[in-house]
Amino acid sequence: MRALLWDGNVAQVVDHPRPQPADGVAIVRVSVAGICNTDLELVKGYMGFRGVLGHEFVGTVSEGAADWYGQRVVGEINFACGHCAMCNRGLQRHCPTRRVMGILNADGAFAEYVAVPLANLHRVSGAVDDEQAVFTEPLAAAFEILDQVSLAPGTDCVVLGDGKLGLLVAQVLFQAGVRVLAVGKHDDKLALLRRRGVETVLLSAWRRTPVDVVVEATGSAAGLSMAIAATKPRGTLVLKSTVAEVTTLNLAPLVINEISVVGSRCGRFVPALRALETGSVDVAPLISAQLSLNHGVEALRRAAAPGTLKVLLRPT
Amino acid sequence: MRALLWDGNVAQVVDHPRPQPADGVAIVRVSVAGICNTDLELVKGYMGFRGVLGHEFVGTVSEGAADWYGQRVVGEINFACGHCAMCNRGLQRHCPTRRVMGILNADGAFAEYVAVPLANLHRVSGAVDDEQAVFTEPLAAAFEILDQVSLAPGTDCVVLGDGKLGLLVAQVLFQAGVRVLAVGKHDDKLALLRRRGVETVLLSAWRRTPVDVVVEATGSAAGLSMAIAATKPRGTLVLKSTVAEVTTLNLAPLVINEISVVGSRCGRFVPALRALETGSVDVAPLISAQLSLNHGVEALRRAAAPGTLKVLLRPT
Repeated sequence: MRALLWDGNVAQVVDHPRPQPADGVAIVRVSVAGICNTDLELVKGYMGFRGVLGHEFVGTVSEGAADWYGQRVVGEINFACGHCAMCNRGLQRHCPTRRVMGILNADGAFAEYVAVPLANLHRVSGAVDDEQAVFTEPLAAAFEILDQVSLAPGTDCVVLGDGKLGLLVAQVLFQAGVRVLAVGKHDDKLALLRRRGVETVLLSAWRRTPVDVVVEATGSAAGLSMAIAATKPRGTLVLKSTVAEVTTLNLAPLVINEISVVGSRCGRFVPALRALETGSVDVAPLISAQLSLNHGVEALRRAAAPGTLKVLLRPT
Repeated sequence: MRALLWDGNVAQVVDHPRPQPADGVAIVRVSVAGICNTDLELVKGYMGFRGVLGHEFVGTVSEGAADWYGQRVVGEINFACGHCAMCNRGLQRHCPTRRVMGILNADGAFAEYVAVPLANLHRVSGAVDDEQAVFTEPLAAAFEILDQVSLAPGTDCVVLGDGKLGLLVAQVLFQAGVRVLAVGKHDDKLALLRRRGVETVLLSAWRRTPVDVVVEATGSAAGLSMAIAATKPRGTLVLKSTVAEVTTLNLAPLVINEISVVGSRCGRFVPALRALETGSVDVAPLISAQLSLNHGVEALRRAAAPGTLKVLLRPT
């Protein structure tokens, strides 16, 4: 089958062995896959990954467990052992022996077919089309904040960054009833949020009044320092971007203002799928381009270009 | 009066104007004062402070409000406005217009007399002698962790660092019923904890098994990276030391393991005074030396020497 492979030196579309079904593992024929910033970090060497890239996908079960056959599915990306202390707490995403699709010891979804443990599959409602369903994984990552941080009524929140993740996070917090101010550099992107009712401001015009909760979704070290300064004493800073690079930071303000910095990664798929079904979050305007998997290398380049939001890949 | 003054270039014992009582402000004749690592940071330029150093003290009210006259007291160090949103929440320690004794726009306690707002004073029980009472402020900073972090039964905690603050934090968590492992470089210091029943291990022998809660009290950037690695996924890292320097840090593990980093500074005096009264925390073994204020410069030098714990100053 065709697959977009990262061999540690170069990413290219190659002929790659098709994954085989195994006990408890389905083969999914990929309909649409999405490029994430993590993919762009991986091809810079992050995690030392080698293999087929891609962890955002929707597809149809083509082999494996009979009762899943023909089902349209999305899949959680952390392949867990299922029986350790973390798994027993429902935190398979933190299983210490996990493999992670397209990120750690498991081939990904930028391919015609991908192998996914049955435990990780979720059926997709007919009300959600493929171009929406492919956002389930990043949307779940945005919902993860609600699992980690208490956002009592009256909480003021700033979302810093108007990239893909920032736009999802701002919508998720808004639909949860949180008072959100989205801060970004691109008025056309912020306009997507204003259409949903979210308050926005350009970084250049932002007054930087400290608030209770700040979500750092800029993916830059400069954004982090800004986020610290924008967090009230005893407030919470949610660290949403995985920046592979080492960051230089003055930590004294964290101690002086007793700020809590909460690292936040993958989330549960259920609330994300529900939000797509009900339309409480709008992902369609986030699609910048759709390319054939044959043009996967070009798609990575497009995804890395400034101003681009989501680039989708179609294997067929 | 004599006072240990930091003028931005040099710390020296000088003749300094005696503070005057004002409405709501008492004058305290200092019996004993303690040197904190923050004092050592201040004379390296931290906070840009100029004035009389010192914020750990016990003394006797000598002027000001009549009903406090002759009382033996300790004093909270954040001088707050008393009517802003933070003060109304009982967080005077985070009042945005606060002055801080010996740290920010207020003369400190390395002097014969110090001015303290009445709202900041606490009477000291006769059961607590001066050499114990002078530890109220750093002990309150250790208790602050209990106000910030939920330490449910069964929580495993590592305290990293066997300096003054680490030794206090380990005891405070232990007396609160938390399972504590204190990790340090100095067996003689760890022995103080073992005598209280606290489990200890030398850094060189520590197996570094990740735990739920790690308290970083080493005051070094290397300690911070070690603390991140020793925190379980979804665990909490309490950042206790104010390191003035800029730190280089790989933040990816915070996001991947969804760790919460909680900055922690000053605490309420009440639980600290109670612990001194009941003897649930033992501070006496932490005293390395007691010097006359006349030898204040030498005392700062001694406090900065490796292996030294608390150095006390006596103005009289």
